[in-house]
Amino acid sequence: MCLGDDPTCAAFAEHRLRYRRDMEPERRAFLKSGFVATGGAAAWAAGGLSLVSPALAEVSAQTAVGKAAHYHLPASAETVHWGYFSKLLKPQIEIASGDFVTIETLTHHANDDAERMVAGDPGAESVFLWTKDRKAVSRRGAGPDDAKLGPGGGLGVHICTGPVAVRGAEPGDVLEVRILDVAPRPAADPKFKGLTFGSNAAAWWGYHYNDMLEGQKREVITIYEVDATGGRDWAKAVYSFRWPGVTDPNGVAHPTIDYPGLPVDHTKTERRFDVLKGIRVPIRPHFGTMGLAPSEADRVNSIPPSYTGGNIDNWRIGKGATLYYPVAVPGALFSVGDPHASQGDSELCGTAIECSLTGTFQFILHKKADLAGTSLEALDFPMIETKDEWVLSGFSYPNYLRDLGADAQDAIFSKSSIDLAMRDAFRKMRQFLMHAKGLTEDEAISLMSIAVDFGITQVVDGNWGVHAIVKKSIFSERTV
Amino acid sequence: MCLGDDPTCAAFAEHRLRYRRDMEPERRAFLKSGFVATGGAAAWAAGGLSLVSPALAEVSAQTAVGKAAHYHLPASAETVHWGYFSKLLKPQIEIASGDFVTIETLTHHANDDAERMVAGDPGAESVFLWTKDRKAVSRRGAGPDDAKLGPGGGLGVHICTGPVAVRGAEPGDVLEVRILDVAPRPAADPKFKGLTFGSNAAAWWGYHYNDMLEGQKREVITIYEVDATGGRDWAKAVYSFRWPGVTDPNGVAHPTIDYPGLPVDHTKTERRFDVLKGIRVPIRPHFGTMGLAPSEADRVNSIPPSYTGGNIDNWRIGKGATLYYPVAVPGALFSVGDPHASQGDSELCGTAIECSLTGTFQFILHKKADLAGTSLEALDFPMIETKDEWVLSGFSYPNYLRDLGADAQDAIFSKSSIDLAMRDAFRKMRQFLMHAKGLTEDEAISLMSIAVDFGITQVVDGNWGVHAIVKKSIFSERTV
Repeated sequence: MCLGDDPTCAAFAEHRLRYRRDMEPERRAFLKSGFVATGGAAAWAAGGLSLVSPALAEVSAQTAVGKAAHYHLPASAETVHWGYFSKLLKPQIEIASGDFVTIETLTHHANDDAERMVAGDPGAESVFLWTKDRKAVSRRGAGPDDAKLGPGGGLGVHICTGPVAVRGAEPGDVLEVRILDVAPRPAADPKFKGLTFGSNAAAWWGYHYNDMLEGQKREVITIYEVDATGGRDWAKAVYSFRWPGVTDPNGVAHPTIDYPGLPVDHTKTERRFDVLKGIRVPIRPHFGTMGLAPSEADRVNSIPPSYTGGNIDNWRIGKGATLYYPVAVPGALFSVGDPHASQGDSELCGTAIECSLTGTFQFILHKKADLAGTSLEALDFPMIETKDEWVLSGFSYPNYLRDLGADAQDAIFSKSSIDLAMRDAFRKMRQFLMHAKGLTEDEAISLMSIAVDFGITQVVDGNWGVHAIVKKSIFSERTV
Repeated sequence: MCLGDDPTCAAFAEHRLRYRRDMEPERRAFLKSGFVATGGAAAWAAGGLSLVSPALAEVSAQTAVGKAAHYHLPASAETVHWGYFSKLLKPQIEIASGDFVTIETLTHHANDDAERMVAGDPGAESVFLWTKDRKAVSRRGAGPDDAKLGPGGGLGVHICTGPVAVRGAEPGDVLEVRILDVAPRPAADPKFKGLTFGSNAAAWWGYHYNDMLEGQKREVITIYEVDATGGRDWAKAVYSFRWPGVTDPNGVAHPTIDYPGLPVDHTKTERRFDVLKGIRVPIRPHFGTMGLAPSEADRVNSIPPSYTGGNIDNWRIGKGATLYYPVAVPGALFSVGDPHASQGDSELCGTAIECSLTGTFQFILHKKADLAGTSLEALDFPMIETKDEWVLSGFSYPNYLRDLGADAQDAIFSKSSIDLAMRDAFRKMRQFLMHAKGLTEDEAISLMSIAVDFGITQVVDGNWGVHAIVKKSIFSERTV
């Protein structure tokens, strides 16, 4: 079913109406108010919308004390970490299970067109501030402080807002994160009033880069306008340019896009305004990177996704989706970034339409002791639930930090494989059908062949992804 | 959009109505009548439903002489070839461009439960007839006549009806095949009146076979009941059994499913009727195997798909879809088989719900000389068009018969790779966007990353498949 975002859907008008109704202030206020306190979570679960059984919802709700709070976490130089997850980060906020947080996220590609995506926006200006004398967010990536390209070495690129700590969360628990709302971040410059922009970089890490038909190797940026007024919900290209090479404010030359947040000097670009004429891309706003801090290393490159989520780059992680993550460190330490307006399965050229978004999330902690016998018992990967589907994420290496040893953060980039990710997705779906739905192995195998769709999530994040999708409606008459 | 087959779709009632309307006898009669002669093809193309431009439709229509004919090709021992494509086969029927043919197809798994899928059905009985003294279709597969397992060696398994020769078709032309209708073939035994059945075999060639959790390696057959009355449109499991080992009527033992059409003796099976309880699988009726004879070899194993189509195993090849094939041999020689009631992307366990179906097809020949400058110029792979999408088929080897040399028909089975199929799908989609839609390479690359979905078609047919899907609506404002 379309979510009011597919104008070709025969029921578009009705879906659109529903979407807009969801966006009404009253409705939003309701969603963000005492949802847990009023038993909303249990009701939700009972309605079949969640992997969480009514019993588990009930017991998990007891960990919430009093009325759920609603926090706002803006994006600024103080509230983001750039290019890595880390169990050592000080939380930006500590919340209780059941609480809501509205979190601003910024695309790390905003400086591809600072006029449209940074200028006049205090949060974005604060994060991207970089002069000869001052770099507001100095570390970008998980690399060393003295890396040649700049602190952090660009070994990880996503601006992540957070972390959010969940009180009482401990390794072995499961954190449920519901995405209640996703809104684009408009340009701040009055001359672009009401418009939102995003950037698509066909970059050196793209799948196409060593396999081009014409001319020399090149990186090409395309700036898109993203309509999200509810009237159209599509994106269209504004212009494109070849990466001109950038010398950063500290004098380091970047002939390729080798470090995030480099300010593009448009006096040195040649813009083509005649690109992708007449083409309208339906938007699928979502968060490319969203997850918890892993336990295996102090700082973890934000690019390869893994068992605690991170850069899954699945466009289904948008409004209405719920994620379930295994908690690996005390407090869980949730961060979110890499906002996308639209992406295709595979994210072929290396990026989506990278576009700043603000999300509203609710967090529900499920304690390990309460998980025995439930669908979430022993969950060891990031599970996605949408309104109609369960979506399981397979990776080339399910936990590459563990699987590839001390050198894992380098090694993963030379071991990318869809074939391996398919194997992992198959095993996870089999496990899910057997454990959560009570099937035998033989039943699970048959069902997977006739009713589960395997797709290619991304082929650009080192730890490549394959997802397995099963429709919830298949089980509507089943008691388990 | 659902095609009236997804009860969870909010517009299900409307879609269902439309589907049923399409099924009305008058409507079907119209579709099968003088469609080309009345300019229907050109109108269709002009409506944006087809890759064929109005100009090409016009010129292609001129090759049709007079009113289009409608033929019926039943499935019988005389009209099928089992397990291979061949340019040497005598056509069952020769038609003109524009003609319609209703073609019966039989699943090669019908003998897994002969009572439900063969008995009392003269066509099926004719094909499956195999006693000590007589085997109605002796050759099954592309192997030698004296193969140990039986003539043809089981090197290829699909019962294909045809071939249909198209008058005037020559190498370099493109054959357009429209699937106008697909209907399930009901059980013939009165005790199953009104019901249709299919078989799913989790077999030794499945993706799971060497990666099972529990117990010994095993092949498991699940028999499904397929409701296609229009009231429910789902399948449900009836029972399952482990492959018991079969000694064929000629005394050859088959401990595994190593030859197609083996008659299962149910006095030797242990049936479990409690499988997949409460699970309802939406049906997606389609033809797993459908295509033209290749030119590279005299007999070609029906299992690996290739540039002239064949066993693509994409569930989108159903009612309403149009295929475009490069013609490789005079007459084109179209055959169809391997009917499926439902399949997931990947066809994980080796088969779908294998279920006999009857299709109604229209054939339009596009001559090479008319293709210059059109979207179909130099087409060298099987292109799928659905109502809303273009679907391009990538394979581990785009033309394995050419790519892998003299030993290709053996070698392909040791070279299966999703990674290679993804590479091929990427290149084909880039070519399509550049050639058919007039984009530059840089435009195509960007668009692929934000709006094209890559999925895993199958991982069980030797030449593994990845498909790339782009929505037609994206181009609705574009002139090309």
